[in-house]
Amino acid sequence: MISKVLGSAMPRKNTSQLLKQLRLLMHDHNYVPQTIHAYVVPSGDAHQSEYIAPCDERRAFICGFTGSAGTAIVTTEKAAMWTDGRYFLQATQEMDDNWKLMKQGVPETLSEGKWLCNNLNPDSVVGANPFLIDADKWQELSRELHNGGHSLVAVMHDLVDQIWTGQPARPCKPVFPLDIKYTGATVQEKLTELRKQMKEENASMVVLTALDEVAYIYNLRGSDIAYNPVFFSYALVTHEEAYLFIDEAQCPSATKAFLQEANIIRKPYGDFMEFIEKKIKTEPNKVWVSNKGSHAVNEVIPKEKRLAKVTPVAVMKAIKNETEIKGLRACHLRDAVALCRFFCWLEGEASKGTQTEISAADKLQTFREELEDFVGLSFETISSIGPNGAIIHYKPRPETDRKITTEELYLCDSGGQYKDGTTDVTRTLHFGTPTQFERQCFTRVLKGQIALASAIFPTKIKGNCLDTLARLALWDVGLDYSHGTGHGVGMYLNVHEGPMGISWRPMPDDPGLQENMFLSDEPGYYEDNKFGIRLENIVQIVRAETPHNHRNRGFLTFKNVTMVPVQIKMIEPSMLTEKEVKWLNNYHAECREQVGKLLLQQGHKEAYDWLVKQTEPIG
Amino acid sequence: MISKVLGSAMPRKNTSQLLKQLRLLMHDHNYVPQTIHAYVVPSGDAHQSEYIAPCDERRAFICGFTGSAGTAIVTTEKAAMWTDGRYFLQATQEMDDNWKLMKQGVPETLSEGKWLCNNLNPDSVVGANPFLIDADKWQELSRELHNGGHSLVAVMHDLVDQIWTGQPARPCKPVFPLDIKYTGATVQEKLTELRKQMKEENASMVVLTALDEVAYIYNLRGSDIAYNPVFFSYALVTHEEAYLFIDEAQCPSATKAFLQEANIIRKPYGDFMEFIEKKIKTEPNKVWVSNKGSHAVNEVIPKEKRLAKVTPVAVMKAIKNETEIKGLRACHLRDAVALCRFFCWLEGEASKGTQTEISAADKLQTFREELEDFVGLSFETISSIGPNGAIIHYKPRPETDRKITTEELYLCDSGGQYKDGTTDVTRTLHFGTPTQFERQCFTRVLKGQIALASAIFPTKIKGNCLDTLARLALWDVGLDYSHGTGHGVGMYLNVHEGPMGISWRPMPDDPGLQENMFLSDEPGYYEDNKFGIRLENIVQIVRAETPHNHRNRGFLTFKNVTMVPVQIKMIEPSMLTEKEVKWLNNYHAECREQVGKLLLQQGHKEAYDWLVKQTEPIG
Repeated sequence: MISKVLGSAMPRKNTSQLLKQLRLLMHDHNYVPQTIHAYVVPSGDAHQSEYIAPCDERRAFICGFTGSAGTAIVTTEKAAMWTDGRYFLQATQEMDDNWKLMKQGVPETLSEGKWLCNNLNPDSVVGANPFLIDADKWQELSRELHNGGHSLVAVMHDLVDQIWTGQPARPCKPVFPLDIKYTGATVQEKLTELRKQMKEENASMVVLTALDEVAYIYNLRGSDIAYNPVFFSYALVTHEEAYLFIDEAQCPSATKAFLQEANIIRKPYGDFMEFIEKKIKTEPNKVWVSNKGSHAVNEVIPKEKRLAKVTPVAVMKAIKNETEIKGLRACHLRDAVALCRFFCWLEGEASKGTQTEISAADKLQTFREELEDFVGLSFETISSIGPNGAIIHYKPRPETDRKITTEELYLCDSGGQYKDGTTDVTRTLHFGTPTQFERQCFTRVLKGQIALASAIFPTKIKGNCLDTLARLALWDVGLDYSHGTGHGVGMYLNVHEGPMGISWRPMPDDPGLQENMFLSDEPGYYEDNKFGIRLENIVQIVRAETPHNHRNRGFLTFKNVTMVPVQIKMIEPSMLTEKEVKWLNNYHAECREQVGKLLLQQGHKEAYDWLVKQTEPIG
Repeated sequence: MISKVLGSAMPRKNTSQLLKQLRLLMHDHNYVPQTIHAYVVPSGDAHQSEYIAPCDERRAFICGFTGSAGTAIVTTEKAAMWTDGRYFLQATQEMDDNWKLMKQGVPETLSEGKWLCNNLNPDSVVGANPFLIDADKWQELSRELHNGGHSLVAVMHDLVDQIWTGQPARPCKPVFPLDIKYTGATVQEKLTELRKQMKEENASMVVLTALDEVAYIYNLRGSDIAYNPVFFSYALVTHEEAYLFIDEAQCPSATKAFLQEANIIRKPYGDFMEFIEKKIKTEPNKVWVSNKGSHAVNEVIPKEKRLAKVTPVAVMKAIKNETEIKGLRACHLRDAVALCRFFCWLEGEASKGTQTEISAADKLQTFREELEDFVGLSFETISSIGPNGAIIHYKPRPETDRKITTEELYLCDSGGQYKDGTTDVTRTLHFGTPTQFERQCFTRVLKGQIALASAIFPTKIKGNCLDTLARLALWDVGLDYSHGTGHGVGMYLNVHEGPMGISWRPMPDDPGLQENMFLSDEPGYYEDNKFGIRLENIVQIVRAETPHNHRNRGFLTFKNVTMVPVQIKMIEPSMLTEKEVKWLNNYHAECREQVGKLLLQQGHKEAYDWLVKQTEPIG
């Protein structure tokens, strides 16, 4: 799955009264340290989560636009909201006339900073909640405003919260320890490794603000945010102590016992800022914090003590241990059972015309629900047919829901959360007769996927260097796709995780590709208003067998984790090289062997027959 | 050609007296603003030139090490010098016991900043000449020192200059205008384009500190630095005026007349800093300066007025106009005449064993000197055989000079400066019978070169995204090369020019690849102590003919500019795909047609016959 989409369309919201209230607060010194002339309302939460809880949908509340990405800015006179191409239409439908839509990616659209500089009187003050903006972005906006003669100040008590009547409470769902049979490493083992890395950087403390980093290091899981098994918390680790800031109400007695056993000191979530501020005063050395953590937490650490860069936990989490690898491979095989049953079933339904995008997604979920250790979906299923498939971040809604027929290409991007891993897989199928152009595009996407999957490369090159391999076959004829090619995937954690990735965008925090990282390999092609194609496998980085090993660098390659057949009908075999045909036939043989066994064991004879048919060798 | 190497080995230098003198100056307030506890001596000049004049070889003077890259640091107690792997041996041979060699790239070696933090007493002051360090690097070092509790201060009068008896004078060679028939654009046309771009960024002034940018914008050429037709100068352009800071002694009357005609105001080189400091006070808007320009010049511009990023001139210079394209193509054809004659001649000589690396390089120069519009070499010829070829930045010296025989692989990387362009080409040949391994490696290097040369890609992707294409065939078997794949090349200017490039290293200043940029395509493979292989063509970015043009992005590809055959004997045809064979045969047909014609016209029948034999189709 490529990237976040949250919220659903709602009727246009009248924001006049809200804006009036907000503007009053902008010069009410009970709420702001000084009069501010503009207030920035971004999309995030205090942990820079990709998915957020309803209580954090402040931007949607203030402007009415419910898409996942956007920044609202309110000045004393104006109100403007920035979002990208996938949301232009939705934003227009949802926002009232108080708001100006700022179309990101359109050349004439000013950036937030430039727009502010153009619209403010000299020497103005801009305010924002420093918990909702990461340190890097804050610095960038601050610099831009400073260059324009203005300043950016921190508003510690969010102004939107003050006027949001009926703001939902922060979720407070129970948190549970995850068994060692899934994590493969105890908290103590993880802390020992973390402290080793802290020592190397002369750091006496690490602060964790990202929810999945806290969950990972302490072997805990929760459900405060839809699709992501995380919980509201902070962690703080020194060479002697380990703290978890979490509300007691979220900790059942088993969790409390686990924390005590692991020597993790529990403190209330709300005490975090005050505690760290005090604690830091006695720290002899550096305090390590992510530069992608909130500006508020970065700022509380004095600059001369702050080591602001990707945390060692992010990298530890990305490199899976033997148990995690086994779990991830196993849950992907189980997941493939659900997908084979689903596609087999849908192929039969398509000719009847009785199913829609939504009912199909629901059916797929029921197949997953039957699987061992299934917890929930890892993101909302993208079930899309025909022109809807061309909307890269489409999620079916009643008003857009389309019938599954034999006339159009069907794209399904879905995944599950299992106790032993997280899955994410995309397949594109035609249940009738595809056009030649659709097959040519599909084959080029497949060539890209194979080129990346079979690349051999030296240890620690950045994922950035491999992105082109997945695009070259499309570029050859002047086609491309406007999303990245690969993201990290969690072990029963977030479906998107860093710090590495495969994209044309430089990723400064990418520590380089290393053995046992798990990534997606998902090129695509989208023909606006017609169809969408995407093929996504999760792949594991493994050692490559090469005759040489230049300068002992260690060469790596990818091994498929996802085991779901690629629809042969969509392939134009004459466009594949011998090597590509061999790759595909090997892959299909593996799918048949590994998933076929499970299908038979579980008595899914029809799906097994479908799988056998789908995995016939070509060429 | 890959990168700079300057200076030749000299006997070990006794630096005791010099260090004593330098340390006295470090607390002499006639020379330093406050007592400093360490002084940094980098390799550069005030213009951040890749090649420097003898007067700027301060680091070589203070420590004795004459290699092109290195940083010396002198504290009150210690002296240390940082350089990279290609120079470890030379540095050991050239530096006396006062100096500690700091081996860059070796994991246990501390960075300059870290070493200083470890070796200085708390609250120490480090000094450096702010003209010799670029703004980005200064900021980085300053931050590192600050984090360690120290500070970095600017020493405006270089301390090494004070103790360097016999320091050569700054070169002051005559500067000449370059005719419009070579430049294709008048100064006025260039200034109009520059001012348009200044306006877009709300800049009222651009400061040019890079010597090739000054030469380019004013259509002037000089010879102050070996191999680079540049001259010591600064430029300053506002919307109304254009200034050139240059010593009058460098301007013959024709040049003065040209400057007057073009409305360029001439000021003495030494007046630059004072002038800009005053001038800036009246500037209403931004002042644009390169972040890769000196810290001194960046600092003279108040932060709130400074627009510090790659200058528009760097990008204008990189995108060649029609006249420049014609010139570059023409001079590469002439250059190929010299190379064909040279390789033909050397093939005959090799079996006799009468030539060496140096005598061969000299002979090649004489062939180039016969060519129209030849001015000089564009860098010192890399003429290397056998194990010397594995030293990536090797230049033959009497003590390393090796006989050219039929037993070993010969690598020749060379180029010329012509009034209509700059060339840079590498070929690797065997005059006897290569081993199978040598041929396999050569073929993989060739596959990489072809993969890059024939790639089709969307406009403005960064060169970084294409680097992997040139490596993949080597990576497949666990091989690689430790240099970048492509650099920009000047039009009768520096053989290496930015701001774009093709490398695995992220290049933040790369504006993205665009039509009519000229780059090198030069993968290689180096087997330590045995042989080196590199194949280098200059290629031009041109529009690609694609059946589609997704989102109107404009697809590009490369067109060969270098026309010198690749030695067929070195190729293992079974390792090439049909497409690669076709590419090579087309390339050779083009070489034969275009260069053959010139060889015949000029009566070089023997070289013509050699060319015909070398360009026979394979497969």
